[in-house]
Amino acid sequence: MYCLLKLAPLFLAVAVCNGWLFGDFVGKQKEQDEISLWPLPQKFQSSAVAFKLSPASFQIVHAKQSSAGPSCGLLENAFRRYFEYIFGDLKKPEKSRKKVYDSDLVELQVWVTSADPECDGFPSLQTDESCELFPFRLSMAMNKFNVFHWHIVDDQSFPYMSRTFPELSQKGAYHPFTHVYTPSDVKMVIEFARMRGIRVIPEFDTPGHTESWGNGQLDLLTPCYSGSSPSGTFGPVNPILNSSYDFMTQFFKEISTVFPDAYIHLGGDEVDFRCWESNPDIQKFMAQQGFGTDYSKLESFYIQRLLDIVAATKKGYMVWQEVFDNGVKLKDDTVVEVWMGNKMEEELQNVTRAGFTTILSAPWYLDYISYGQDWQHYYKVEPLSFPGTDAQKKLVIGGEACLWGEYVDATNLTPRLWPRASAVAERLWSDKSVTDVGNAYNRLVQHRCRMVKRGIPAEPLFVGHCRQEYKGL
Amino acid sequence: MYCLLKLAPLFLAVAVCNGWLFGDFVGKQKEQDEISLWPLPQKFQSSAVAFKLSPASFQIVHAKQSSAGPSCGLLENAFRRYFEYIFGDLKKPEKSRKKVYDSDLVELQVWVTSADPECDGFPSLQTDESCELFPFRLSMAMNKFNVFHWHIVDDQSFPYMSRTFPELSQKGAYHPFTHVYTPSDVKMVIEFARMRGIRVIPEFDTPGHTESWGNGQLDLLTPCYSGSSPSGTFGPVNPILNSSYDFMTQFFKEISTVFPDAYIHLGGDEVDFRCWESNPDIQKFMAQQGFGTDYSKLESFYIQRLLDIVAATKKGYMVWQEVFDNGVKLKDDTVVEVWMGNKMEEELQNVTRAGFTTILSAPWYLDYISYGQDWQHYYKVEPLSFPGTDAQKKLVIGGEACLWGEYVDATNLTPRLWPRASAVAERLWSDKSVTDVGNAYNRLVQHRCRMVKRGIPAEPLFVGHCRQEYKGL
Repeated sequence: MYCLLKLAPLFLAVAVCNGWLFGDFVGKQKEQDEISLWPLPQKFQSSAVAFKLSPASFQIVHAKQSSAGPSCGLLENAFRRYFEYIFGDLKKPEKSRKKVYDSDLVELQVWVTSADPECDGFPSLQTDESCELFPFRLSMAMNKFNVFHWHIVDDQSFPYMSRTFPELSQKGAYHPFTHVYTPSDVKMVIEFARMRGIRVIPEFDTPGHTESWGNGQLDLLTPCYSGSSPSGTFGPVNPILNSSYDFMTQFFKEISTVFPDAYIHLGGDEVDFRCWESNPDIQKFMAQQGFGTDYSKLESFYIQRLLDIVAATKKGYMVWQEVFDNGVKLKDDTVVEVWMGNKMEEELQNVTRAGFTTILSAPWYLDYISYGQDWQHYYKVEPLSFPGTDAQKKLVIGGEACLWGEYVDATNLTPRLWPRASAVAERLWSDKSVTDVGNAYNRLVQHRCRMVKRGIPAEPLFVGHCRQEYKGL
Repeated sequence: MYCLLKLAPLFLAVAVCNGWLFGDFVGKQKEQDEISLWPLPQKFQSSAVAFKLSPASFQIVHAKQSSAGPSCGLLENAFRRYFEYIFGDLKKPEKSRKKVYDSDLVELQVWVTSADPECDGFPSLQTDESCELFPFRLSMAMNKFNVFHWHIVDDQSFPYMSRTFPELSQKGAYHPFTHVYTPSDVKMVIEFARMRGIRVIPEFDTPGHTESWGNGQLDLLTPCYSGSSPSGTFGPVNPILNSSYDFMTQFFKEISTVFPDAYIHLGGDEVDFRCWESNPDIQKFMAQQGFGTDYSKLESFYIQRLLDIVAATKKGYMVWQEVFDNGVKLKDDTVVEVWMGNKMEEELQNVTRAGFTTILSAPWYLDYISYGQDWQHYYKVEPLSFPGTDAQKKLVIGGEACLWGEYVDATNLTPRLWPRASAVAERLWSDKSVTDVGNAYNRLVQHRCRMVKRGIPAEPLFVGHCRQEYKGL
């Protein structure tokens, strides 16, 4: 995370999992290039037999033994979506063709084996993503990202429309009507993600990065002083007032019901101490508490109370690495996010030695653009290269591609994100041994063309073009 | 210019000129921010009087004294376009309103003073762009770029469809039907540009960067040797065969008629000598000519003949700086383009000392992206800072923002180009004294919003938003 942030950056997290695919692919090296799976599954079985798929005869169905059935809205929706992906660009559907030939593949049976098919539930850390299916990525998004980390508010704007504290967005958003996320918007994001097996973890970052909160909530932020009088500017959340904690209690009670995921990201990064240092009331409180001049103790004091408040809502929490570094007492199931590029390996070692699960984002800040094929840098990172025991390595439960919003909006978001984030996806989802950059290049070029074909303007890796540009000629 | 190139990158060139604007603007500093002209005109006169413009009463007309009139298609087209820009986003045109009030501004008179109004002609280096009009940039494009340098073919592909040599694109383009510029496409680009006062200068780069030419024109390229036998690969244009020059004569005869501009860009950059060195026939020719092993002499030999061929078509030419550096004899009116970042000042000094006009592109390679507000780097360049006489400085007739295509296609072209190219535009079009980055930032933010409003997805400079996003709320 870096200095100034903007509202609504995108974070895409992938849990390291052991998904694998099985299917009748033509699997010789040369033809595999044609298939160009991305990201590569952990296991991959193929045969030389080719089948024909026809939209007139092919269907995706529930296997008899499946624990899910036609009432499973999530799967029904996915069946429709992937049928469209498979046949959507056929120019003339063979409507009149009735006869089924021997070489036709007429059915994809989806067999859900878990007792709870999770048709109406939300995906979670425990969701079993191993599956037996063709590479049409049923129930997963196109690049296998499965967590959307939604950094939904920041210094510049508070677009989240709170039912409990409506003034937060009314006075803290760029615009109270056009630049907000309404409860309905939030629900739609969550539902869209759920249908694709994606969790939504919102981040409400405190006590720093909260300038916009102060507009709609009086006395929440610390008044900064210039000499002996208030300067008129404000700093982090005021940690010495009970009203701050009363507010957080009510606010996170709402958040815990609006967002169904078991986790909330509580931030805790980059707290600027200068305002606290300037304020005589804070100074007095520091003395009373015996904190001396160590303001990280005051930060920990605040975070500790906040964590207790959120724990009472029965949610788990994620925090940025500073919270761990400052020695705050964390619940056992806390996820610590490692974002600082320097000493990344040391941090992973410390966090996992202390027994906490961790998510790594440090090497994958996609907002840091540079000339050339920087996807290769993201691709070459090995997140488990730090010194540690196997038990420690297992605590690295995933990684995250971050795209902070300082220089990004709707005009350039998609080409900046894709296919650079796809490189992160394969690093995290595929086997550790999948490291051949040349092979990755060939598959990624085609994967990128697939994205463009599905309406995602992913930028090119290099010179060239996509086959679909030929328009069938 | 840099190693591998892709077809069809964009070059936008601006001639340094002395355009100035005059009008009844409200010109106090505060309100000037509201107007936020970009790029700033050389002269700017304002008054505190505000007038009202109504689509029911306002019109753009030819002044009585103007040398142009209703038969001037170029101006009529521009009148319509700018009327739409002024009033296009009014929700309810005041159709029923007939009465004209005193404060209404009812007419913009356009007074063309030159003897030749150039209504049907093409813009040229000599076109007088100073004008008296409101800031609606009649007859100029939104960022005041006035030359489109069209690098239309390169190693990877030959998309230009030639009437004389149709096989060049049939065999040298990515695809012979979908990935080509037809004669009609070329005409439309030229006409679209002409209506906006923009010249189109095509570049057919030889003898290097010609790999794609070889597919459709046998024996044009030099066969490379591996030891004593041809390796099957090809190098630059073969400079020792008369057939090469016969081809160029016919080819550039066509080019000189297809493109109406007085100049053609002939390239001449980055010639790789290794293939020439490997070829025994070339070696023999070198000995005959007394060139020793100095292959830049062979390059000059080729270029010299090419320049004579093109000169015979009555066209002027532009070349990349290597052609000048190698001591090729150039026509007096040659434009030398300085593109190498190292020793840029020394090169400008040498080129202008030799009396040639020059265009500077070295500091403005927009394909070199980096984190943050790199537009400021482009903005801070002073193209005339090299040591030299006033006469030498006058020979710097413009600059060029280059966007090479290695990492760019339709998915990311526009947000990568704008508003970064706008920074170059102001540097080249506005007065030398316009250097305040903070002031530029404020105006450029608004100019970028104007572009977005007109359907150009220009990327954001930083956090924030555009007023029009409020949708009138």
